[in-house]
Amino acid sequence: MPTRLTIATQRPQQLLDITAQVSQWLTICGKREGILHLFVPHTTAGITLNENCDPDVMRDILTTLEKLIPTHGDYRHGEGNSHAHLKSTLTGHQVAIPFANGQLLLGRWQGIYFAEFDGPRQRELILHVV
Amino acid sequence: MPTRLTIATQRPQQLLDITAQVSQWLTICGKREGILHLFVPHTTAGITLNENCDPDVMRDILTTLEKLIPTHGDYRHGEGNSHAHLKSTLTGHQVAIPFANGQLLLGRWQGIYFAEFDGPRQRELILHVV
Amino acid sequence: MPTRLTIATQRPQQLLDITAQVSQWLTICGKREGILHLFVPHTTAGITLNENCDPDVMRDILTTLEKLIPTHGDYRHGEGNSHAHLKSTLTGHQVAIPFANGQLLLGRWQGIYFAEFDGPRQRELILHVV
Repeated sequence: MPTRLTIATQRPQQLLDITAQVSQWLTICGKREGILHLFVPHTTAGITLNENCDPDVMRDILTTLEKLIPTHGDYRHGEGNSHAHLKSTLTGHQVAIPFANGQLLLGRWQGIYFAEFDGPRQRELILHVV
Repeated sequence: MPTRLTIATQRPQQLLDITAQVSQWLTICGKREGILHLFVPHTTAGITLNENCDPDVMRDILTTLEKLIPTHGDYRHGEGNSHAHLKSTLTGHQVAIPFANGQLLLGRWQGIYFAEFDGPRQRELILHVV
Repeated sequence: MPTRLTIATQRPQQLLDITAQVSQWLTICGKREGILHLFVPHTTAGITLNENCDPDVMRDILTTLEKLIPTHGDYRHGEGNSHAHLKSTLTGHQVAIPFANGQLLLGRWQGIYFAEFDGPRQRELILHVV
């Protein structure tokens, strides 16, 4: 059964490390081997994997995305969050991670990041194991 | 068995809403729960999820991508569609969507978009349920 | 069981065609139908699908990404490879490809590319069949 986790973001734009929350869910779920699917059911947020150590990497990613796709740009969409729709399409809305012996096979430096581009908000993440 | 849907795009660059077509296929397929894989077997087209309501969002996405990666730029590839290869790599060629009770677990505002970057053409989409 | 392949990249930034290596693994694995998951457990490398014929496409993709996200930019991360973290998030770290009759259902022009952005290095790719 797909499960929903609640993710509370704290800033307008944020890469929020959710590795611990996801790993904990996998442990409770009890499956030992397979693929974990993570799906973001939003259009102004995404999900990505990246460095779990130096927070400056997250800052550099958000700053550079903002330079390429500014919050206030030449957009027509009336809600003023076109930049967030664009950024979510570029990071993507889903990721699938293999696991074995009940552990995600993430690389040593890899963390799972919920990518908020139009926050802060209460968001959802759908998890499903195959 | 993987199934192929035909997608007819109408413009050189277009984000074509295929949500209804994909949902209908899932209903006919009859599976109740799992992951639906959508795969684009092309190199100048992609697939993404985004807002299903205001078409200006699609316009803003295409316009901004075109600003970042212009159709006529400093490219070497002789066919003149390097921009489309780039855009397809940025949106990606596949997406996996969880479903339950025979319904895709898309967010309220999420639609599935076939991303044409070198059309109009007859395209294919490969669907597979796990 | 997930399997690890070793990928040796040869340049600082490179789109390395790994289609033959991956297809060969699928043949040895012996499964006839399903989804092949490819996962990159790194944060300065990614994976993408694109044209398997003209190498100028790979040159154009890398050159344009470099123009958008320069190696030497306004970054804070001390290791000097922020651009590579960004590029890996944009290409993505995983792809899922359907297969039938033991053959990947790639399009006629599609190849699988390991995307090195901070090489050359010995890298890993995790393969898993569902």
